[in-house]
Amino acid sequence: MPPDTTEYSVDHRLSDAERNIHRVWDNGLDPVLTIEPGDVVRFECRDATDRQLDVESTDEDVHDLSFDPVHPLTGPVAIEGAQPGDVLEVELLDLQHKGWGYNAFFPGDMELGLLPEDFEDPGLYVWDLEGDVGHFVNGIEIPLDPFPGVIGVAPAEDGEHDTLPPRRVGGNMDVKHLTAGSTLYLPVEVEGALFSTGDCHAAQGDGEVCVTGVEAPMFVTARFDVRSDMDVDQPQFETAGPFTPTGHDEPMYGTTGIAPDLMEATKLAVRHMIEHLHEERGLTRAEAYILASAIVDLKINEVVDAPNWTVSAYVPESVFPE
Amino acid sequence: MPPDTTEYSVDHRLSDAERNIHRVWDNGLDPVLTIEPGDVVRFECRDATDRQLDVESTDEDVHDLSFDPVHPLTGPVAIEGAQPGDVLEVELLDLQHKGWGYNAFFPGDMELGLLPEDFEDPGLYVWDLEGDVGHFVNGIEIPLDPFPGVIGVAPAEDGEHDTLPPRRVGGNMDVKHLTAGSTLYLPVEVEGALFSTGDCHAAQGDGEVCVTGVEAPMFVTARFDVRSDMDVDQPQFETAGPFTPTGHDEPMYGTTGIAPDLMEATKLAVRHMIEHLHEERGLTRAEAYILASAIVDLKINEVVDAPNWTVSAYVPESVFPE
Repeated sequence: MPPDTTEYSVDHRLSDAERNIHRVWDNGLDPVLTIEPGDVVRFECRDATDRQLDVESTDEDVHDLSFDPVHPLTGPVAIEGAQPGDVLEVELLDLQHKGWGYNAFFPGDMELGLLPEDFEDPGLYVWDLEGDVGHFVNGIEIPLDPFPGVIGVAPAEDGEHDTLPPRRVGGNMDVKHLTAGSTLYLPVEVEGALFSTGDCHAAQGDGEVCVTGVEAPMFVTARFDVRSDMDVDQPQFETAGPFTPTGHDEPMYGTTGIAPDLMEATKLAVRHMIEHLHEERGLTRAEAYILASAIVDLKINEVVDAPNWTVSAYVPESVFPE
Repeated sequence: MPPDTTEYSVDHRLSDAERNIHRVWDNGLDPVLTIEPGDVVRFECRDATDRQLDVESTDEDVHDLSFDPVHPLTGPVAIEGAQPGDVLEVELLDLQHKGWGYNAFFPGDMELGLLPEDFEDPGLYVWDLEGDVGHFVNGIEIPLDPFPGVIGVAPAEDGEHDTLPPRRVGGNMDVKHLTAGSTLYLPVEVEGALFSTGDCHAAQGDGEVCVTGVEAPMFVTARFDVRSDMDVDQPQFETAGPFTPTGHDEPMYGTTGIAPDLMEATKLAVRHMIEHLHEERGLTRAEAYILASAIVDLKINEVVDAPNWTVSAYVPESVFPE
């Protein structure tokens, strides 16, 4: 049963003030809030770069950006009774952006994103977000389906852990289907679970190929429960999508990547998509890379026809003006 | 513009008689038919194992199966005027199964499929296919959205080439979205293109994890055109899905695989899905592997949060009885 996203009351609010922000996973951090199972918390989350970018930013600001404050997370929240071996159930009730967001990719020598070797210079696009719609160049509009890029609990291993990689306990999973109405199941490794979230995206394609979704400061509202009747090895979830921008089958253009390595097949599929968007849709290659990260989905078509695998990138035609 | 799948007339028919079947890609094969651009051809295609399995087959028959005749393809068809460097446009107009199909996986020591190390013994499920529905165990029903697993043209490189791997010129791509109403663009490498198809699937999940879709003998009807105004490095396509079984957003259960290697992440996601289907849906692990291959979709959620990537497996709840 999906959570009822219309009938709930918020029990606790956490602002994005510095006292509620941390930037590493560490089970030694004191919880900023302790709640009972069943409680609803509204988290205010900063953007991934921790306010280094704003609506007036340019490519130059991306060049000068520091990765030290990435990612600012709101939390940790301790859930009473959660013990190692339990599962933390997180019902996502609401996500609310603040009217703006951005996609960025970084200088090639930083080796971030899927294709750093193809893009020497950084790029930035600042999005005006209006309700459920994000406006891109050339009249392109994408639907907004916000979700938290980072959502997880503290690992059992002591010490500070980088927030960039996702882990068994969740974190930077970037699962675009963790939208309002979804339920996430996280393996608990420490007492109280120590939940945090942040790095919200107003939209993202499966793959997040340029290394950013539509990054946006946001409010995340979630209800928590402790499940001692479940056992998950890595995060699992229930979702109703979106699986396409319109919510139903619609025309898409697909580019394949066929290669004997899944990563290489993925790179080829995305390169072919960037070429397609450049040639057929009149985007610069930088714009195409950003649009691919924001709306193009990667699917593994087959991973069994040895020695070559097929990965494809899908762009929905509905995002382009008629 | 998607092809009009309702108004066309078939110009040529190719039966699945031995004279129209070949089992390797080879640009030295004589075409069994030569057509003009714009012509419509109806291909009768054998199942992937070339009639070694039928509706009475059991696991034992899978054990004894020979891979020598895999895959029997119908063709090749030469398209007048197609030259190396052109693109062959293939409009898929109709796919018609013959009322039955099967999923099989093979003994683990054959190293086929995504998880041969997890399944020592082979498995088989013979499907009754009724119109648009396939019937599985426990009241599970999946929608049928037939497509050709193998569809391609002859490579420029002389000699015989195995039909198992897909290549730049297509072949065993197993793109489940190449349904009726889709258009495929294939790079032409030899004069006349030399098109063949076969290995049809009545359904398949993205990934085809157990190494078979719902394998079924089928008729494939397609219109051909030669595009000298296009240039594709690897196959590209237009499709309207299906992106979900019902054609619109619907509840799914997702299992993540989080690992520093895309293949390992993929294996973990599928292992977690098999465990879920076993524990929560009462399937044997063999049945779960087969159902995953038939209906579970693999998505690359992120491939940029170094050093760990997220791949997820999605099973639609609509296939289970209420």
